[in-house]
Amino acid sequence: MSNKKIAPSVAKTAQILYGTYIIITLLEIILLYFGGMSLFDAVIHTFATVGTGGFSSKNQSIGAYNSLYIEIVVAVFMVMSGTNFSLYFHLYNKKSFNFFKNEEFRFYIIVIAISIAVISINLFGNVYSSIGQSLRYAMFQVSSIITTTGFATADFDLWPDFSKGILMLLMFFGGCAGSTAGSIKHIRILMLIKNAKREMLKVFHPNAVMSIRIDGKTIPDEVMQKVTNFFFLFISIFFIMTLLVALQGLDLISAASSVAATLGNVGPGLGLVGPTMNYGGMTALTKILLIICMLIGRLELYTVLVLFMPSFWRN
Amino acid sequence: MSNKKIAPSVAKTAQILYGTYIIITLLEIILLYFGGMSLFDAVIHTFATVGTGGFSSKNQSIGAYNSLYIEIVVAVFMVMSGTNFSLYFHLYNKKSFNFFKNEEFRFYIIVIAISIAVISINLFGNVYSSIGQSLRYAMFQVSSIITTTGFATADFDLWPDFSKGILMLLMFFGGCAGSTAGSIKHIRILMLIKNAKREMLKVFHPNAVMSIRIDGKTIPDEVMQKVTNFFFLFISIFFIMTLLVALQGLDLISAASSVAATLGNVGPGLGLVGPTMNYGGMTALTKILLIICMLIGRLELYTVLVLFMPSFWRN
Repeated sequence: MSNKKIAPSVAKTAQILYGTYIIITLLEIILLYFGGMSLFDAVIHTFATVGTGGFSSKNQSIGAYNSLYIEIVVAVFMVMSGTNFSLYFHLYNKKSFNFFKNEEFRFYIIVIAISIAVISINLFGNVYSSIGQSLRYAMFQVSSIITTTGFATADFDLWPDFSKGILMLLMFFGGCAGSTAGSIKHIRILMLIKNAKREMLKVFHPNAVMSIRIDGKTIPDEVMQKVTNFFFLFISIFFIMTLLVALQGLDLISAASSVAATLGNVGPGLGLVGPTMNYGGMTALTKILLIICMLIGRLELYTVLVLFMPSFWRN
Repeated sequence: MSNKKIAPSVAKTAQILYGTYIIITLLEIILLYFGGMSLFDAVIHTFATVGTGGFSSKNQSIGAYNSLYIEIVVAVFMVMSGTNFSLYFHLYNKKSFNFFKNEEFRFYIIVIAISIAVISINLFGNVYSSIGQSLRYAMFQVSSIITTTGFATADFDLWPDFSKGILMLLMFFGGCAGSTAGSIKHIRILMLIKNAKREMLKVFHPNAVMSIRIDGKTIPDEVMQKVTNFFFLFISIFFIMTLLVALQGLDLISAASSVAATLGNVGPGLGLVGPTMNYGGMTALTKILLIICMLIGRLELYTVLVLFMPSFWRN
């Protein structure tokens, strides 16, 4: 998905991507440093943002700074890091200043906006007494989870089940293709939605040949089959791993959210693996299962799953 | 899936299927009556078994009789009712006495056997002190949930999370095509697994043309696309409806299991909709959402979803 050529040579492409990565990194370090973070803190939190890793030196994560400025900077950079890096190249190359011409980016921003809106409304009155506060925590948490970063400014495990459910769903979305984020990614979900629309239109026009287009380009059936199968495998692995983790004694919510959070490389989940908890208390076997989830997720399923195919070992 | 012709004329096919249905019904009524049920009870429990409806006149469902004989009879007839009815015709027509030649039936029995085995082992020691009792309750509950009947002999909401997780997963399996059971159905899941295997083999043989075969017949790509899309839609509706039900104040487990149980036409779920509970305490809006789930599930998605397509209203 992400191997669309952005420059004629591999070396040039790598150079541009590294350049973009370095510029974004330096920019965030400066902005955080001027926001009152020590240089050391600014550097590690930037590394954890741009790499969508989410590791913080504070137990309370970004919440420890209790600074709206820092939260906005980190949220914006998380969303930027979940964006396809080739878009920055096009910006630099003056090919297009309009990110919204890119269907995946548009879809990504719409999902973020809707999630922030509905969670804010759900939090307002139930958890926070002002709409401003509700927006502040919803904005940060949605940006953190959807980009699979995993930073926290609030204990969202205490939020209403609807908000928790949305965050759990976002763990399956992940960022855009060609970003540092994990999980299914928006391009695949967009393709699945377009495919679903096509299949339903076929009910009315059974003989029509309808192609799926993204950014004006037709998606070959071959690619669409890979994506539908990716979705089936991702959900199957999620169910099977949740059962195996539950077998180690975890309740279903902790089991399901720890698998979703590791498979999507997010970090924190719900229940026993909520943002104020950690994976330290788990048995060795549970940890091994979740390590497998992290590897499968990071390597996008196929690379790990083919190891279990006899064909792999035959040659 | 289920419109494979079993007799040359529609009238003849209908006659055979009704005949099979009536014979199975009469047989179960007789067996339950001789097991000590009143004729009235035998009739309504048979109707609820063969139609995989699961409605009982007792609050404790089949558990109220506390009879191993009745449990075995009902379990066997639930599994029979979850079987493709055309197989009985072939048996009657002496085309084949060997049900296991049918790949879907074989897969269905294997899933049932494995589920009973792992749940029994999980229950033994944790819930029941004898392996016999564990097997008895596991056998009944697996048969009831996988066929989407929904009868209960135990409060499986009190079982360990692993067993609850398996039962929840079975709600997505459902019976075979051409049965009275609901949910995704085994034939589709079997096709999805075969498709996944093919996609992974393509990693090694990118140019090979590999067809998916069931019972020796090739599945056209067109059909496979419908099935992968069905899976995507089923899971998407499950997630969206779970969120909407959670918004009404239900916890995530009760919300997810009530949606899985209504979408799959099972009946009881976990938590607030566990086998000793019912849907009576829910708000009107929650009930409307779950009614929609039952209709979408029973009508196999497309029939209901096309109502939301502009094309449907245009003509």
